[in-house]
Amino acid sequence: IQKLDMELESIEKGGFEHFMLKEIYEQPRSVHDTLRGRVSAKQGHLVLGGLRQYLHTMINAKRIIILGCGTSWHAGLVAEYIFEEFARIPVEVEYASEFRYRNPVIYEGDVVIAISQSGETADTLAAIELAKSKGAIIFGVCNVVGSSIPRVTHEGAYTHAGPEIGVASTKAFTAQVTVLSMMAVMIAYRKGTIKETRFREMLVEFEQLPDKIEKALQLDQQIQYIAEQIKDADNALFLGRGYNFPVALEGALKLKEISYIHAEGYPAAEMKHGPIALIDEAMPVVFIATQDSSYEKIISNIREVKARHGKVIAVVTEGDAEIRHMADHVLEVPAAHEALMPIIAVIPLQLLSYHIAVMRGCNVDQPRNLAKSVTVE
Amino acid sequence: IQKLDMELESIEKGGFEHFMLKEIYEQPRSVHDTLRGRVSAKQGHLVLGGLRQYLHTMINAKRIIILGCGTSWHAGLVAEYIFEEFARIPVEVEYASEFRYRNPVIYEGDVVIAISQSGETADTLAAIELAKSKGAIIFGVCNVVGSSIPRVTHEGAYTHAGPEIGVASTKAFTAQVTVLSMMAVMIAYRKGTIKETRFREMLVEFEQLPDKIEKALQLDQQIQYIAEQIKDADNALFLGRGYNFPVALEGALKLKEISYIHAEGYPAAEMKHGPIALIDEAMPVVFIATQDSSYEKIISNIREVKARHGKVIAVVTEGDAEIRHMADHVLEVPAAHEALMPIIAVIPLQLLSYHIAVMRGCNVDQPRNLAKSVTVE
Repeated sequence: IQKLDMELESIEKGGFEHFMLKEIYEQPRSVHDTLRGRVSAKQGHLVLGGLRQYLHTMINAKRIIILGCGTSWHAGLVAEYIFEEFARIPVEVEYASEFRYRNPVIYEGDVVIAISQSGETADTLAAIELAKSKGAIIFGVCNVVGSSIPRVTHEGAYTHAGPEIGVASTKAFTAQVTVLSMMAVMIAYRKGTIKETRFREMLVEFEQLPDKIEKALQLDQQIQYIAEQIKDADNALFLGRGYNFPVALEGALKLKEISYIHAEGYPAAEMKHGPIALIDEAMPVVFIATQDSSYEKIISNIREVKARHGKVIAVVTEGDAEIRHMADHVLEVPAAHEALMPIIAVIPLQLLSYHIAVMRGCNVDQPRNLAKSVTVE
Repeated sequence: IQKLDMELESIEKGGFEHFMLKEIYEQPRSVHDTLRGRVSAKQGHLVLGGLRQYLHTMINAKRIIILGCGTSWHAGLVAEYIFEEFARIPVEVEYASEFRYRNPVIYEGDVVIAISQSGETADTLAAIELAKSKGAIIFGVCNVVGSSIPRVTHEGAYTHAGPEIGVASTKAFTAQVTVLSMMAVMIAYRKGTIKETRFREMLVEFEQLPDKIEKALQLDQQIQYIAEQIKDADNALFLGRGYNFPVALEGALKLKEISYIHAEGYPAAEMKHGPIALIDEAMPVVFIATQDSSYEKIISNIREVKARHGKVIAVVTEGDAEIRHMADHVLEVPAAHEALMPIIAVIPLQLLSYHIAVMRGCNVDQPRNLAKSVTVE
């Protein structure tokens, strides 16, 4: 029986060594599935079936509160930036666990977006009940169809990433950010805070995501080489600014979860307020430094780290000529609108964590102490 | 000349080995100075001279945005909890560096509180200018009188902590939290979201702070012993919930800044979403677990860490009987209203970082790579 089980598992892994690697590689397809039937650049439409009845509530919201834990909280941070920039709605992102225990201020008609891959996260579920009892409208972004959270929300959108088996979330994250970005762009367009041309541009950007993720996956060989160089590190820093700040947090969390390297993410400008003291030759520092509105600023942060002899690995935009001369390693990803860059820039970080963990002999799909869904408090 | 300089410096240090230790020990006095002339429990009054013209703007604010960097950002997180709980005003705390570069949504009449010890922090200053240009009312919380930030804000309150020389901020933090808490309590009382009895209770709590800090300082010997036990760690986690979550972040930042141990703070409930994978026998985990509304929850987090053989150091309320049986070390601090506990609970963490750094031979007052005030971007 065991032999058969193992063969079955190997079939389920579709030829990949681990579920996590399979799921990383599924992302062109899973993001495609997330977009399917919702976005059409040709027809100029963007529709989320689960956002109808409360669309006007969203458009008129004075404030959106986003709740999540772990990777879902990171997806919420990306959403904060795009909702504020595009839809001009102030957003507050909260740890579900902190929110629920602190008598939060919620006004009637406030909108809450709750994010959970499993739809069963205990703290998020409890936070939703609390917000609901205070009159908030709750919108869910979950992956598992028919799970608990979608059953208690007013409306919601599934991420359609397919079952995620690996404990470290990968394709659920990119699907969450895709759904949240679609929501923000749709609301912004209906609200009139972005123009038709920008809206159309974004639809094209959405449709290009799967191909760009595919391209980012081709960095795999190069990432294995880099993983080999830094696999024995005890610590690592991940730094980004703006849309790429949450990507830094997510990249650090992946590495922490599966390789047990103590990695920490920070907004790059905060480095000078403390973490820069940690930097020496032994410290790999991963920058997410694609060509966006904070590009010049992050270049000076890279310079500061190099001046302290840190080892710099930079995720950059294809063709970037400047960072190449500063960083120890550059990973080139396709250009994209900065608001969608997190969906692409996170790919090499997922692969980097994966390869480092495998090289360190860690059980990638079942990291120690961790459960796939945290269904207890 | 050098001899004289050194003698002068030694006089300035007032018999302490380092400025940082002197400043830690000054806190009963500096918090007293922060309160002086502002709080009187006997007369039942709480007055902040710098909050008059815009007091009604504050009372009627639909939203407060708090801006800061590093330790000041942590003080802002504590303030978020007390402003929301007491004054029922939604608060968003932002890294000044992130805020200024992302076209934030600000409504006319929004209130911004900007926190900076030096009053010269470049990112905070730039963020203030941006918010001001969009019609926000800016309130400053600074320590250095006549510095740049107080000159550009609409109103403000000085922290009166006296000059802070050590690069790692200690007495400035406790003074910032004291000022922000006074503001929250004053606004809440005027707004009617807290009753007279609660208001009077809080005035007594404020006045008791210096003595309670004094008592927390008496843990010094015990902290030296604990520091000896964990000084060789490469990593550490700091965990707290609610009001003590920002204390965890601040405790971790202190250790990182001056001892170069990679310490990271987390809201305790997030541990299960990733960081728990890091925990083994070699990992000291510092809990801030005083008897507040999340006490029961944090006890179960301590249990989880012990089950993974982590080494637990817990800051607890005097007389705590339960955690004593679980933790490897307990540090007892005097009881206080949970909203003011951060001002007391942070003291043993400052001392812990200090002693560990000294034992590791680090230059405590001038940690590598760090400047006292970050006056460049």
